Amino acid sequence: MDIENEVKKIAKDVKEASNIIAKADTNQKNMALTYIAQELVDNKEWLIKENKKDLEKGKESGLSLAMLDRLRIEEKLINQMSKGLYEIVALPDPVGEIVKMWKRPNGLLVGKMRIPLGVIGIIYESRPNVTIDASALCLKSGNGVILRGGSEAINSNIALIKLIAKGLEKAGLPPNAASLIPIVDREAVNVMLTLEEDIDLIIPRGGESLIRSVVEKSRIPVIKHYKGVCHIYVDEDADLDMAAEISLNAKVQRPGVCNAMETLLVHENVAKDFLPFVGRLLEKEGVELRGCDKTRKFLPHIKEAKEEDWYQEYLDLILSIKVVADINEAIEHIEKYGSSHTESIITKDYNKAMTFLTRVNSSTVLVNASTRFSDGYQFGLGAEIGISTTKLHAFGPMGLADLTTTKFIVLGNGQIRI
Amino acid sequence: MDIENEVKKIAKDVKEASNIIAKADTNQKNMALTYIAQELVDNKEWLIKENKKDLEKGKESGLSLAMLDRLRIEEKLINQMSKGLYEIVALPDPVGEIVKMWKRPNGLLVGKMRIPLGVIGIIYESRPNVTIDASALCLKSGNGVILRGGSEAINSNIALIKLIAKGLEKAGLPPNAASLIPIVDREAVNVMLTLEEDIDLIIPRGGESLIRSVVEKSRIPVIKHYKGVCHIYVDEDADLDMAAEISLNAKVQRPGVCNAMETLLVHENVAKDFLPFVGRLLEKEGVELRGCDKTRKFLPHIKEAKEEDWYQEYLDLILSIKVVADINEAIEHIEKYGSSHTESIITKDYNKAMTFLTRVNSSTVLVNASTRFSDGYQFGLGAEIGISTTKLHAFGPMGLADLTTTKFIVLGNGQIRI
Repeated sequence: MDIENEVKKIAKDVKEASNIIAKADTNQKNMALTYIAQELVDNKEWLIKENKKDLEKGKESGLSLAMLDRLRIEEKLINQMSKGLYEIVALPDPVGEIVKMWKRPNGLLVGKMRIPLGVIGIIYESRPNVTIDASALCLKSGNGVILRGGSEAINSNIALIKLIAKGLEKAGLPPNAASLIPIVDREAVNVMLTLEEDIDLIIPRGGESLIRSVVEKSRIPVIKHYKGVCHIYVDEDADLDMAAEISLNAKVQRPGVCNAMETLLVHENVAKDFLPFVGRLLEKEGVELRGCDKTRKFLPHIKEAKEEDWYQEYLDLILSIKVVADINEAIEHIEKYGSSHTESIITKDYNKAMTFLTRVNSSTVLVNASTRFSDGYQFGLGAEIGISTTKLHAFGPMGLADLTTTKFIVLGNGQIRI
Repeated sequence: MDIENEVKKIAKDVKEASNIIAKADTNQKNMALTYIAQELVDNKEWLIKENKKDLEKGKESGLSLAMLDRLRIEEKLINQMSKGLYEIVALPDPVGEIVKMWKRPNGLLVGKMRIPLGVIGIIYESRPNVTIDASALCLKSGNGVILRGGSEAINSNIALIKLIAKGLEKAGLPPNAASLIPIVDREAVNVMLTLEEDIDLIIPRGGESLIRSVVEKSRIPVIKHYKGVCHIYVDEDADLDMAAEISLNAKVQRPGVCNAMETLLVHENVAKDFLPFVGRLLEKEGVELRGCDKTRKFLPHIKEAKEEDWYQEYLDLILSIKVVADINEAIEHIEKYGSSHTESIITKDYNKAMTFLTRVNSSTVLVNASTRFSDGYQFGLGAEIGISTTKLHAFGPMGLADLTTTKFIVLGNGQIRI
């Protein structure tokens, strides 16, 4: 079979299986996830052996140490994946939830009930744990899932999808409700992205270039998240101790993630007091500072921030700092250079908090809290399949409910339209 | 300027204007809509004169009477459009609504606040009233709007958009927040559909072929509604009087719309009692019946329903009828031939009502009520921009809220992530 027909066949089969998953009850879905968790632990040695094939090939082809690290399956990761599955078992099933219900003057009860989206395509790089996490979230929310992982992880992913199929089968569910496209050729992705009849949503997980190439080619809706250029604006009415503590947390607690702060905006009236103070704390943690001219008046030893710095997602211990005249300049800066991801204002002033909250239309807007909270788990969504920075369907951290849609349900007792 | 650059320029301008509309307060938006309503009435004669140009050209080029009818602007339609605007003024503003808000263990208040989508592109045929209705809904929900109406209505649409611009300007809002692409060449639509940076959502309004061609070409998400092949299933436990009244209403009250019934499914145990009875009522109203073999046992004089009938959206006084063995066969028929639009079950049995409600995943599923209720106004959404039969973002009748998304807002008092 050629690539096109093979991919089409997989998608057709998943679509068919998705009709059964959509109607499976919560217990059955939870049993499947529990069986998968057990299979993972029971087949540790085999998984590590299959993963070794990928690691060896990766070394030969000169993958970086960081990439090999992401690719590696060790006992610790297997236990983590298994624990993650039990956490998803513990989450409430979104399918069948009635989001709201109201009564019409003619007595009709009209409501909105959650149903699965159908089939979700996940395109990702070489982290094999995504195979388990993403499958579990899609299955729990009643969806079929088609996975296309990085070619470097092909043996690991084939092994993992076998265990998923086993778990599904043990629970009496169709084993191919979660299927992997086991074709290394990139043409397989191109075909996948044209199958709008069988795939309802594409979620790419990985770097900006992967996401851009998926968006470029897809005929299926894509929920995307390019990057997080997150800002903190320290207002003239801020509690400066709080501002420093939050800035430090947002930059250094985990600098390599998308909700870390990349640019600090400081009101000019507090620049003199705040910048040397927070600068010292940040530099003590190894942060490289880059500032605008006004910033460098108070921190003369730091590098100059160039125009391109303001667009930069460093994902590293680097921070750009700009002094602004007021909240308007701060918001304009965010609108121009931001990525619609996450921004926070630090202020004691009620009106400025409200202004920032309503005028900034990023996916998460905070008052007096660290940008690092922009996360499905931290928001109490229970799990996170990704963070959307596009507005359609979902915006911001996406939980299980975002893998569903709602249908209208109407309960009558003989009503006709007049 | 060539077509590509002209369309790009319009989109850029609307995008810029949309940032102002997004932040406009409710009063200002309502004032704009009120001014537009006044402009319509004040410029009646002129509108009718401009519309005459289109009508004359249409006659020359041989448009059908039905099409000329849809194209025509008369005093009555102007009053209707004006009244429609006042109705939208009266609706609550979705922007800024906090959909829900909850507290996290660390004291953070996390909520979801409605914000506009950005810029919405409307592609439609030759009904000039869409120019007013769609613009009003987009503006009220804080969005910019780019309109591309049928070429036959070009003079009418140019006139209408001028009045919209006047109304916006009088209210102190950017006049080009609602803009028409005044280019007859189809190439203009093709360009529009590639402008994913400036247009956030495309809503095509018109026949299936228009919608399919938009979906085919668009790089922007499209909310679509191909057709409504709506079913009523009369269960063996149905109140047969109610079943007949609802069937009659669903078929004949307005046969030319998407939520009219196209296929009647009848449980075999009541076929003998129900079919001659409902058949007589329907035929009295001029409905042509087409039945399966079992149906024709009880209605021997009617035409045979062929395989293609089950897929058919007649939009006319024609009904296909099928006798089924049980609720499962009914649901399977709906899954195979339906269009995910609207289906209703008539039954007195609680378990069957619940089975139908949960297992049928059409955008609207009713119990003991007419399919004709599948409508934004009837559901109490206040207005309707369209009915989506695709699941992403919105499914079923779409109101003002469906032209928005939600951002997360987080209120803290110094929280950092540990």
